[in-house]
Amino acid sequence: MRVQSNTHLDAVVGVVGATGAVGKEVVGCLEKRDFPVDKLRIFGSARSAGSVVKTKFGDVEVELFDQSAAAECDVCFLAVSGDFALEHARAISKSCIVIDNSSAFRYEPDVPLVIPEINGKACKGKNLIANPNCTTAIGLMGLSPLMKKFGAKRVLMSTYQASSGAGQEGMDELKAGTIQVTSGEKEVADHKHFAHPLPFNVIPHIDKFQENGYTKEEMKVTWETRKICDMPDDFPVSCTAVRIPTFRAHSETIVLETEQKVDVKVAQDLLASSPGVKLVDDVQNTESPQYPMPLTATGQYDVEVGRVRRSEAFGDYGLEFFVSGDQLLRGAALNAVLVAEECVKNGDL
Amino acid sequence: MRVQSNTHLDAVVGVVGATGAVGKEVVGCLEKRDFPVDKLRIFGSARSAGSVVKTKFGDVEVELFDQSAAAECDVCFLAVSGDFALEHARAISKSCIVIDNSSAFRYEPDVPLVIPEINGKACKGKNLIANPNCTTAIGLMGLSPLMKKFGAKRVLMSTYQASSGAGQEGMDELKAGTIQVTSGEKEVADHKHFAHPLPFNVIPHIDKFQENGYTKEEMKVTWETRKICDMPDDFPVSCTAVRIPTFRAHSETIVLETEQKVDVKVAQDLLASSPGVKLVDDVQNTESPQYPMPLTATGQYDVEVGRVRRSEAFGDYGLEFFVSGDQLLRGAALNAVLVAEECVKNGDL
Repeated sequence: MRVQSNTHLDAVVGVVGATGAVGKEVVGCLEKRDFPVDKLRIFGSARSAGSVVKTKFGDVEVELFDQSAAAECDVCFLAVSGDFALEHARAISKSCIVIDNSSAFRYEPDVPLVIPEINGKACKGKNLIANPNCTTAIGLMGLSPLMKKFGAKRVLMSTYQASSGAGQEGMDELKAGTIQVTSGEKEVADHKHFAHPLPFNVIPHIDKFQENGYTKEEMKVTWETRKICDMPDDFPVSCTAVRIPTFRAHSETIVLETEQKVDVKVAQDLLASSPGVKLVDDVQNTESPQYPMPLTATGQYDVEVGRVRRSEAFGDYGLEFFVSGDQLLRGAALNAVLVAEECVKNGDL
Repeated sequence: MRVQSNTHLDAVVGVVGATGAVGKEVVGCLEKRDFPVDKLRIFGSARSAGSVVKTKFGDVEVELFDQSAAAECDVCFLAVSGDFALEHARAISKSCIVIDNSSAFRYEPDVPLVIPEINGKACKGKNLIANPNCTTAIGLMGLSPLMKKFGAKRVLMSTYQASSGAGQEGMDELKAGTIQVTSGEKEVADHKHFAHPLPFNVIPHIDKFQENGYTKEEMKVTWETRKICDMPDDFPVSCTAVRIPTFRAHSETIVLETEQKVDVKVAQDLLASSPGVKLVDDVQNTESPQYPMPLTATGQYDVEVGRVRRSEAFGDYGLEFFVSGDQLLRGAALNAVLVAEECVKNGDL
């Protein structure tokens, strides 16, 4: 039975991969945002099946994943690999709204790629909806309002990405390796989930390298920005994606070349009133200057945007700014739950 | 007595501030590069005066700094604050070549700002020479050859700067704070030298904020790039300078908009043959992909440059790349000692 947008507590909600870093946060967001859950079903691998997850919706025993069992839900969140999603998402979506966090379907013409505050209407009538890459989702929260206001000619981004992008294992590896180094046990930390040791290092390499010398993570920002913002296929966006030793908030420096003359105060006011954005921009406060940081953005739904200034590179036709957002929330779980809320609003759920 | 360029061991060399992070490295570079030191004199504050520094040139007792004593040297390295340099550098330089690591004189028209591999000739006949900001020095090692080859229309930079930029105290604060967090003693680390806690955080704030919303650190990159590369005063360069939890190598993402069509292979070959540069750029090596990182750049004289690619933002007229260089070496001490070597070559010392 589908939820009516004006009723509560009558959707069967499935989460596949709920024991991973993103899946856990999906359950947390459903709880904290009072999503109208009648019954929560959690699906996992043989390793986690049978274990019990305590939730606001009751104790839920993890079921071994099964395509037809997942298809019994009204809405199903996939917090799994792209390969897993490719194998199962279309089939489940025949009878259930599927919100997929992987990159498997993001570039399919019939699958909307959605950040609800930006292009929520694209969900309407769709049973398979893709959640954007975390870096894109966090960056666009600041970029999109400014692009709409001042017009966009070009976007350049450099990222400061947290270990959580590699899941719980990534965060665990950073912590364990950091202790190895600070205790003097090892000069260079062990590594397995990252291509090189991450503690006290930066690694300009996330996801696979493409033929053009960019990584797939970097090209996701290019491809997804164009799709979400309804830009032409050759709209110039470039990104350098860099892993740094932080836990779960991504930061980004963003430069926007604009069509129209910029006005910093107008830009700041616009950001301050944009949903999903927290303007954190008081650099002249010498006692305690304010700007986005992982320390303050972690665990928050809103993406922090600050350091807004007229670009020294593009003059009156450019803005530069800095964002910091929780990778597991806006970058994954929260966005997915907001997509489901959009489906409720649209009457599809 | 001045050193002849073809003789050895007859210069009296002074280092002011030799007990700080940069000063220690100046002594190390003089030792490792066999600089023709006849006598090494080390000057410090009342706190360090009287202590003995063991060097390859003998045990040196730290002298209490005195302007006229420093002026007795043939060449004197200042590894001190801008205020200290402002007070003493001009006076000392009347009878001694002064190489100042602070920002005090970098924009004075009569003081050359020198990276020897780029504009070494500017030292000629000068008795006061400024050492560039660490971020600029590291970035220009990669940028300058490419700007010369392909022409430059615009430069954009985002930095990943180590705690050593705040001296030994900065590095100590990062280590102590990291242990506080990983041991569970504190959820958020103590901080004093940085505006906010640095462990597992990033801070988009280095040096003071200017009226235009950029920090002084960021504007140094703009101003110094123009001066060192002999660019016009309105040549567009912008930077976002970000402190991250690493110890002593700075990394930077750099985007260069060019005048001429770029060729990635030509750019890589050029970098591979540029003095002071180590091309580290094998991203298609799936076993062990190679790119610049603090882990490998730390303690090295050469700046690592890699991830060289045609820009997705500027197409055929843009290059993007990543650099990593030791902040205390190329970013400070090594560059200063290379300047002194240039003075020897020029016959000024």
